[in-house]
Amino acid sequence: MATEVESREWYIASYAPIGVPNSDHIKLRTVTLSLRAECIPDNHVAFQILYVSIDPYMRTQLSGLSLPQIPLGQVIRALGIGKVIRSKDAKFSEGDLVLSPFFPVAEFGVMPSNLLQKINPADGVSLLDHLSCLGLPGITAWVGIEKIGNAKEGSNVFISAAAGGVGIIAGQLAKVKGCRVVGSVGSDDKVKLLKEECGYDEAFNYRIETDYDAALTKYFPDGIDVYFDNVGGKMLEAVLNHVNHGARIALCGMISEYNKVWTEREGVRNLLNMVGKEVMMKGFMVGSYYNHFEEIIKEMEVHLKEGKIKSKHKIYNGIESFLESLASLFSSSNVGKVILQVAS
Amino acid sequence: MATEVESREWYIASYAPIGVPNSDHIKLRTVTLSLRAECIPDNHVAFQILYVSIDPYMRTQLSGLSLPQIPLGQVIRALGIGKVIRSKDAKFSEGDLVLSPFFPVAEFGVMPSNLLQKINPADGVSLLDHLSCLGLPGITAWVGIEKIGNAKEGSNVFISAAAGGVGIIAGQLAKVKGCRVVGSVGSDDKVKLLKEECGYDEAFNYRIETDYDAALTKYFPDGIDVYFDNVGGKMLEAVLNHVNHGARIALCGMISEYNKVWTEREGVRNLLNMVGKEVMMKGFMVGSYYNHFEEIIKEMEVHLKEGKIKSKHKIYNGIESFLESLASLFSSSNVGKVILQVAS
Repeated sequence: MATEVESREWYIASYAPIGVPNSDHIKLRTVTLSLRAECIPDNHVAFQILYVSIDPYMRTQLSGLSLPQIPLGQVIRALGIGKVIRSKDAKFSEGDLVLSPFFPVAEFGVMPSNLLQKINPADGVSLLDHLSCLGLPGITAWVGIEKIGNAKEGSNVFISAAAGGVGIIAGQLAKVKGCRVVGSVGSDDKVKLLKEECGYDEAFNYRIETDYDAALTKYFPDGIDVYFDNVGGKMLEAVLNHVNHGARIALCGMISEYNKVWTEREGVRNLLNMVGKEVMMKGFMVGSYYNHFEEIIKEMEVHLKEGKIKSKHKIYNGIESFLESLASLFSSSNVGKVILQVAS
Repeated sequence: MATEVESREWYIASYAPIGVPNSDHIKLRTVTLSLRAECIPDNHVAFQILYVSIDPYMRTQLSGLSLPQIPLGQVIRALGIGKVIRSKDAKFSEGDLVLSPFFPVAEFGVMPSNLLQKINPADGVSLLDHLSCLGLPGITAWVGIEKIGNAKEGSNVFISAAAGGVGIIAGQLAKVKGCRVVGSVGSDDKVKLLKEECGYDEAFNYRIETDYDAALTKYFPDGIDVYFDNVGGKMLEAVLNHVNHGARIALCGMISEYNKVWTEREGVRNLLNMVGKEVMMKGFMVGSYYNHFEEIIKEMEVHLKEGKIKSKHKIYNGIESFLESLASLFSSSNVGKVILQVAS
């Protein structure tokens, strides 16, 4: 084992309060990490990063608007999977696979071991499932469909950005619950994927069917009971013209709105519809459901092993592809969970 | 007792899908009602109308957009209080005071007795309290503050149209629960009323403090936990810039929006704030809480008798004032519950 490694890492060079972050905002640099035992503090672990999960919420730490604000010059952090290469904690051994939401977006790192969780993929579960179906996307899908959407047998469920990391699992989970599920996506390939591989009853390409009201009239002749909203804006407005009495709207994210200053965002003009139809709309952050994570992961693992839910990944290769992988989240170009593979 | 009476009544001459209904849409006519025993069907009661409750929801039946659509030429119906003048039901006697949500907006009427409820105002309760604090406005206030708003000791509660029939009770109820309460209203007189007579901690005139964001910064240094929304539009948007984590928004009505076609309504551009702050927003119709009416009225009666909640009324006199009283709902000119006094 080398006594030191060169590690490339991405750091925040300047904040990107609006717009998609670019190479002015985040930059790659090389740092040297000592792997000598005396340089690694007690209860710390040195690791190599294998995979980094690329998610829309990362936008926040790059905006400079998060509280606490992340100082300029700091490495960007993300959920990922790594492999232990040196351990100063008896609970971790060289070669262990570990998961952490606080990994640096880098090739190597050293972290307190209490921020790491060991993973042992079971039969029928791949390592990457821990970043999608059994990770935050899966848990997020569960919270939106079950806890907020209260989707039941026969519910009419609509999911936007339905081929995204969360949407693709949300739709499959709703099918497991016996719902009728329709998704909106940004390409015909995704329409095909959802219908042929993910069990969606219908899907449509919002770039082709640009009259959202007409599309929802066509795909929801019986109205919408549950809307899993990943996009906000005009699609949310259209949905509010098609909701059934007592409908539930889970606001998971608003990909159409993140990169705009708020006064330039799309106004939703028909919230009045929520009154007469007694619609409930709730925003949520998956972290608030932390106490339920264990039971949720347990349930998702059952669906996964029974083949009822499949993870879909879009892999970007090499630490140098981080910026490209991040930008892809906002361009409709991906199918499934975006993952940066740093090493194998 | 006369054997017949002339009764003036208001009917729908043409629909008013948008805008404030005017004399083109609703008209007064005189009908003759026979009071002879043989002309009143069994289990029916003839009555004189004393009071009619004037509420924003009446807008719907005049729009022609309600389901079922109310046919042109039909008398308008409303919640009111009447006095029995002849009865073909042993449970009702001449002189009984009765309440019904289905009274014609008229001077006299005949109705099935099962649509009537006898009222006996208790000590400390006036007849008009049955149309405000103990009526739909009081129940509506309770549902918004308790059931949806989940207002607790110390919650920061904001109420718009706070001097209106519902708002004025909602604020007093929130004070009973130990909340800090601020209201927005359309005149300085109303600001004074709320602060001096209704126990509001603060109130502001949105026609003077036209920068709602600045007003909310000033009046809610600790943010908003519960918003009882009676107006929608720009005020709702401003509130979403000041909500605390986990805030609840009860959508009771949107007085700023009723009279516009939906594409001309104010768009709310910052719903994205609901995601990170996990805000819950729910529209409601008081009728859906019918099973709770009895317990709610019981609770409100306690507050009323203890002097903790007072009803405020704006009385319009004479059946001919109906149109004026209705238009007043949309003009910010009233304080408290608008009531049409038809007879005394």
